[in-house]
Amino acid sequence: MELVEQLNHIFYPRAIAIVGASNSPEKVGAMCLQSVVEAGFGGEVYPVNPALSELRGLRVYPSISAIPGEVDLAIIAIPAPLTIATIEECVSKGIKGVVVITGGFSETGTEVGADLQAKIRHIAEQGGMKVIGPNTMGVVNPSFNLNATFSPVFNSIKAGNTAFLVQSGGMSGYISYTLADHNVGISKLMGLGNRCNLDFHEVLPYLAQDEETKVIVMYVEGLEQPKQLLTVAREVVRRKPIVVYKGGRGEESNRATLSHTGALAGKYEFYRAAFAQAGMIAVDSITELVDTAKALAFQPPASGNRVAILSVQAGPAIVIADKCRERGLRLAELSPVTKRKLRQLILPLHPVDNPVDMAWQYDKSDTCRAMLEAALEDDGVDALIVAAVGYTEELSRAVIDVRQCYPKPIIACFSTFDGLNRDHQQALEENHIPTYPLPERAATGLAGLVRYGEILTALG
Amino acid sequence: MELVEQLNHIFYPRAIAIVGASNSPEKVGAMCLQSVVEAGFGGEVYPVNPALSELRGLRVYPSISAIPGEVDLAIIAIPAPLTIATIEECVSKGIKGVVVITGGFSETGTEVGADLQAKIRHIAEQGGMKVIGPNTMGVVNPSFNLNATFSPVFNSIKAGNTAFLVQSGGMSGYISYTLADHNVGISKLMGLGNRCNLDFHEVLPYLAQDEETKVIVMYVEGLEQPKQLLTVAREVVRRKPIVVYKGGRGEESNRATLSHTGALAGKYEFYRAAFAQAGMIAVDSITELVDTAKALAFQPPASGNRVAILSVQAGPAIVIADKCRERGLRLAELSPVTKRKLRQLILPLHPVDNPVDMAWQYDKSDTCRAMLEAALEDDGVDALIVAAVGYTEELSRAVIDVRQCYPKPIIACFSTFDGLNRDHQQALEENHIPTYPLPERAATGLAGLVRYGEILTALG
Repeated sequence: MELVEQLNHIFYPRAIAIVGASNSPEKVGAMCLQSVVEAGFGGEVYPVNPALSELRGLRVYPSISAIPGEVDLAIIAIPAPLTIATIEECVSKGIKGVVVITGGFSETGTEVGADLQAKIRHIAEQGGMKVIGPNTMGVVNPSFNLNATFSPVFNSIKAGNTAFLVQSGGMSGYISYTLADHNVGISKLMGLGNRCNLDFHEVLPYLAQDEETKVIVMYVEGLEQPKQLLTVAREVVRRKPIVVYKGGRGEESNRATLSHTGALAGKYEFYRAAFAQAGMIAVDSITELVDTAKALAFQPPASGNRVAILSVQAGPAIVIADKCRERGLRLAELSPVTKRKLRQLILPLHPVDNPVDMAWQYDKSDTCRAMLEAALEDDGVDALIVAAVGYTEELSRAVIDVRQCYPKPIIACFSTFDGLNRDHQQALEENHIPTYPLPERAATGLAGLVRYGEILTALG
Repeated sequence: MELVEQLNHIFYPRAIAIVGASNSPEKVGAMCLQSVVEAGFGGEVYPVNPALSELRGLRVYPSISAIPGEVDLAIIAIPAPLTIATIEECVSKGIKGVVVITGGFSETGTEVGADLQAKIRHIAEQGGMKVIGPNTMGVVNPSFNLNATFSPVFNSIKAGNTAFLVQSGGMSGYISYTLADHNVGISKLMGLGNRCNLDFHEVLPYLAQDEETKVIVMYVEGLEQPKQLLTVAREVVRRKPIVVYKGGRGEESNRATLSHTGALAGKYEFYRAAFAQAGMIAVDSITELVDTAKALAFQPPASGNRVAILSVQAGPAIVIADKCRERGLRLAELSPVTKRKLRQLILPLHPVDNPVDMAWQYDKSDTCRAMLEAALEDDGVDALIVAAVGYTEELSRAVIDVRQCYPKPIIACFSTFDGLNRDHQQALEENHIPTYPLPERAATGLAGLVRYGEILTALG
């Protein structure tokens, strides 16, 4: 079976088995069952536990082989030594993929753990089955109501166009929750854990062809096969941007990385350079990851790095200009025609220049729109950032209107403190205008669009 | 009158006059009156407008001199050329300070503007009065229900121990709203605008002696008298930490800074080095400013840079370790005694090392507390970061308990997605444990405590 087809069965399973399903709510198996059921999964759910007959109104099966129907995906939450026999059963049953939540494998740094993992890998590879993990949080596909993890919290993640591959269950939480807080929905979320026989470079081509995915985000710790990832990534980025954060950067944290996912982490600078060379967007913080992904999820790449800033207040425009420059963007030089247009719109005392001072005109819808249009029509402007603390209905409306007429990226920096303008933010984001709570973060978002534009140009 | 006493009248006025108060809700004068009244100000409020007799049930006076009682603070929101006569009246009335919201002064870059500002300054200095601004958002003192600005949104700012001096109204919004979102309350907020005759270095000594202020945060653009600020700051930081962000960093944004507050900005690197040398904590982003201020507002400075990380998941511990190292902190080397203690508490398969893996023990209150105590009792540990996605009542309780017994700083990195653990966060922060939504941000917060400890040591 082609890997793409196999991953389709894993992301869109018709039936799921949960091995280790339990009625003790604190047990991982119970949490897995809860996650699957409460997500509203539409297919068959088969809890497996030889000691029980019924759970949450579902019939419990004594083993995988006792399940009557076909199963695409199994979630395994039983002690590590017991997984071997279960994996064998899964292969016999023709299951396409198993999520092994259980820890106690190569991440322990012990021979026993490494040996167990090698056995699982051997069985799975012989049987043509994919193991997600072991030592993983699992797989989530919000649009399919699939939450094949041990955490019901993932049920609150909204469906969207950003795929997220992650090597750490803990970071999958921090990152996906932060993405969700910023209205970045998830198309697919997969925790690769120890990457027994399914690694980053194998899932990327699937995401490249996945119609629900526009942006790919990765949290990587160690990699045994960095070259394979780089080769695949170089192709994938022609179709979709990849934003990558590398965890495990120092010698001290390498020790922790080793004991976490069983992979030795290399020097960070090496990774960062290699990622960039492969056309990935390497980020230095999770905030940067989220801000970059958000811009890419909402807006097209920029065709150049010349930015026009339109701001209701002067201070934020200064900070945005600083941060744009730090990230390699330039303040656009406005053309004489643009300046003449703006002179008619801007209050007499304010100079006409970039950053453009919208000052007290931001409650005049036509004036706002005319200012935005003047900037967007300037051939020397590649992208726009609009900023305001305490912005208005009129300004939001104008931003939404012009976005529909001009293909250049537009980013908003609007505050939503204490519910302020929450409705406007909602309206803007429904119209694909990403909004950021701080000037520096708006600049980060736009820098991602500029960078991806540069990557596409470089690839030709 | 001593400046400290004068500023006391400005931050704690007994009576306020609002010149330009209006009944057109979109006018700045109307917004000023709304802000003052809706803040629940307890003293007298005197709207001034010769064309009106009553506003919001308050008697309106035709001029400052027509006000019967004493006035400490006047808010001025009338066109720039008209301010001269009003400022003269304010001096005659014996007013201690005026907030000049109006723009149209030196920030315009025009001779007319510079001239107007020089006149105001001259009148105020002759009369021993302080002008906050012109071209400013004003003054807020939440614990005194004072909102002497044009924005009622500042009424949602909670009282706390962090003072905030700012040179930009727009940035005052972005920053104070972000501080508020992170539960950092404000003791005093002042927008200095064009700093006509009240500058950063004059307000700092007031904040140094202000009992409500524990931390001072500044957003600075240009400075005409950097040496005076540095001299004053060097003294103030012996009593309270100063966190400073410098806006207007590049040549391009210098132009915008000039037209914003009428001050020429210098090279950023120069400022940054000078700030650091004066013992201020210079930050490179608003997120860093907020994270640093939060730690300093909640916790004591650290006496060294050796950090123990206790984490329920391995990935976040790795990211925290990376970020600590980037910020000049070190992973503490745990003593053999500590390791022996932890060996009894940590699951057999998990290695005993720093970062300490709390794994599946985080729902056991006694075990959590014992782990935290083991780390805090280690003489090689100066500070602690505790991290968990999906943390528990038991873990929060343990963190709160140990904080009361050990003087070392403790920082939490807990996710609160979708309301998750919001109660625990509340309890932690009421007990002075700052919590951060991302690993990198927890490390930033702790770095601020370590840096301030180093500053105090260096000052002797």
